[in-house]
Amino acid sequence: MRQSILFTKTRREPPKDETFKNAILLIRAGYIHKEMAGVYDYLPLGLRVIEKIKQIVREEMDAIGGNEMLMSSLQRKEVWEKTDRWDDKNVDVWFKSKLANGSDVGFGWSHEEPITDMMRSNVSSYRDLPAYVYQFQNKLRNELRAKSGIMRGREFLMKDLYSYSIDQAAHEKFYAEAAEAYHRVFERLGIGDVTYYTLAAGGHFAEFSHEFQTICEAGEDTIYLDRKKGLAINEEVLTDDVLKTAGLKREDLEEVKAAEVGNIFSFGTTKSEQLDLHFTDANGEKQYVVLGSYGIGITRIMGVIAELFGDEKGLIWPQEIAPFRVHLVVLGEDEAARTDAEEAYKKLVEEGVEVLFDDREDVSAGGKLSDAELMGMPYRLVVSKKTHDAKKMELTTRADAETQMLELPAVLRKLK
Amino acid sequence: MRQSILFTKTRREPPKDETFKNAILLIRAGYIHKEMAGVYDYLPLGLRVIEKIKQIVREEMDAIGGNEMLMSSLQRKEVWEKTDRWDDKNVDVWFKSKLANGSDVGFGWSHEEPITDMMRSNVSSYRDLPAYVYQFQNKLRNELRAKSGIMRGREFLMKDLYSYSIDQAAHEKFYAEAAEAYHRVFERLGIGDVTYYTLAAGGHFAEFSHEFQTICEAGEDTIYLDRKKGLAINEEVLTDDVLKTAGLKREDLEEVKAAEVGNIFSFGTTKSEQLDLHFTDANGEKQYVVLGSYGIGITRIMGVIAELFGDEKGLIWPQEIAPFRVHLVVLGEDEAARTDAEEAYKKLVEEGVEVLFDDREDVSAGGKLSDAELMGMPYRLVVSKKTHDAKKMELTTRADAETQMLELPAVLRKLK
Repeated sequence: MRQSILFTKTRREPPKDETFKNAILLIRAGYIHKEMAGVYDYLPLGLRVIEKIKQIVREEMDAIGGNEMLMSSLQRKEVWEKTDRWDDKNVDVWFKSKLANGSDVGFGWSHEEPITDMMRSNVSSYRDLPAYVYQFQNKLRNELRAKSGIMRGREFLMKDLYSYSIDQAAHEKFYAEAAEAYHRVFERLGIGDVTYYTLAAGGHFAEFSHEFQTICEAGEDTIYLDRKKGLAINEEVLTDDVLKTAGLKREDLEEVKAAEVGNIFSFGTTKSEQLDLHFTDANGEKQYVVLGSYGIGITRIMGVIAELFGDEKGLIWPQEIAPFRVHLVVLGEDEAARTDAEEAYKKLVEEGVEVLFDDREDVSAGGKLSDAELMGMPYRLVVSKKTHDAKKMELTTRADAETQMLELPAVLRKLK
Repeated sequence: MRQSILFTKTRREPPKDETFKNAILLIRAGYIHKEMAGVYDYLPLGLRVIEKIKQIVREEMDAIGGNEMLMSSLQRKEVWEKTDRWDDKNVDVWFKSKLANGSDVGFGWSHEEPITDMMRSNVSSYRDLPAYVYQFQNKLRNELRAKSGIMRGREFLMKDLYSYSIDQAAHEKFYAEAAEAYHRVFERLGIGDVTYYTLAAGGHFAEFSHEFQTICEAGEDTIYLDRKKGLAINEEVLTDDVLKTAGLKREDLEEVKAAEVGNIFSFGTTKSEQLDLHFTDANGEKQYVVLGSYGIGITRIMGVIAELFGDEKGLIWPQEIAPFRVHLVVLGEDEAARTDAEEAYKKLVEEGVEVLFDDREDVSAGGKLSDAELMGMPYRLVVSKKTHDAKKMELTTRADAETQMLELPAVLRKLK
């Protein structure tokens, strides 16, 4: 993509109403635009990051048998009344409104109830199970405070998967497979080594749930982790009994701030009973479906990665989710340099390398170089009069600022 | 994809609360699920159709310089007050609610105002223009009646593009390019020959707008078309003066029902003035940006195509947007037939052919064949004991029911 057609601008000054690094850098670099506290637009570069995160999650969900679909945002009161979660006393983040005919309508802050209700049309026999259903949904939550940028929003993108299993044993088998898939997701996103499988409260339905917590100063949670074992316990459930269950010792644990990037939950059959999702088993008996729920915060992960890897110069994207692999920057007005840059752009596109080409004519060399650092592509390829004379181009990695002078074929080999 | 892991079911009986063919067939075939009138979930097959329509639209919008981004659904009252469109008296389809702090918030039924407000952060000089910005957005509209399936929803997916131009001449040039891109979109979607460029009312901002109207009995509009010239006039603006402007004669026109699948609109500078989107021109003078807006109803198009091509047996998808190119169906329990089918599935996947494989074991031959007709993939490939003995497979086109007996390599050549 040519930067001259990208409509967004970078900003030198941090926005006055943001205190978190993720929001400051993402706004400065033109990835997001703030509509109101906790509500952001995703500009072209930001949307590209989101789509890359989604694609990694999608591949891993498909690999464990997930079926992608998309629920509506508008929700019926009746289905939430069955589980006693329509009342604002029980769920305090509802946005609600009225249909033109006067009846109540809710905006999806979660989809467990509607999706389980929808499954009633698709499950009647044991032959219809298991079913693993997921979506990427724009959740709307009326949070009282939303001040941590895109790490906690009133509007945010989430992957939510629901598992419908024939019995508890089948559920537990899938639960373990889903946990493995989550590990692969975070590994591929470049945060595998700082993301811990964490024992957390199970709510009304089970003794425990599991969270995937990424070590992050800007996170809202406090966890106690055993780095060697790669396990952690959320402070909310840290007791001697739980330590024993988890096979961890208090003296091996380290207290850290962390951000919850994923969670997995067992519901047993309670919700299926409330919503009447049943099936006929192989013996002709009526049984209730065993339900699990598996979330990943897509926009939150984008925020966490901005927090973790960003430095004083700007964003630093892991290879797998960078909007572009390389930022090609041409400096100066020299005709030969421009020709070199156009040739490099053409070759990179031909080789299938995702490239953002800073072809702007009215920006200084200093402005272009600092923009490239702010925007944070993994590689920067600089072309100028100097590189033309040297017959080599300057390839720099954003993360460690290592620079190599390479001929174009060598650049292509490296970036392919 | 193996049908055994697809969680959706087909239904023989039409849903009792639907009267339009698109909703009846899409629900029966397991493409959509109804939440309430005008609100549907998109099940895996339905979502695949949507993604294919989106991809075609995306490619054509990118080709004319569009930048894809994503606005929020939650919207600020203040920005809509500037154009006097917050009041329910002026816009009667708002869903509104309150933030936890008591302030008003709206849910996006359109994005002209917020997106133009957002552009204020990105446009200050003539060098920042033109800018062409688009998104695929889940629009929420509080329609009093919504009874035509996914052709008019309370929640629906729309592509909306906005053009920001330096002056009226630049705007008109892009407007014409966008119209050409729209023609290519509808051509690629398989409805080019029944979709007409239609003169329609311009609203407050211009004498006319243009609609892309697809001839469809289930459509809400009445248009008058000149088939030879490929032009039409919406009945709302059919006067002698307009006929003259359009270069059409009343006696050449045919009255048809049609569905509006796209529209393009000129706003002049009125909205930019209201929202204060200005720039400094090359002479250092302050100017207001010329705005255009360009919509395509993604879910509506899916409904229109279901209406147009569906027959008494079920859906018929054009090649370009079918969820899968071929429906591979194995009949009976014969071991050799199963082996043939598995081999065909493997080869089709290897060749990159999108294939839905009906590998279900508990469904009769008749049930499988009628399901394949209902679901409407362009090709059906039947494998059975009979085809095994003949050393050929049975390839049938859904649209014209033509059947050929072919060896597997010939099948692969045909479907690649």
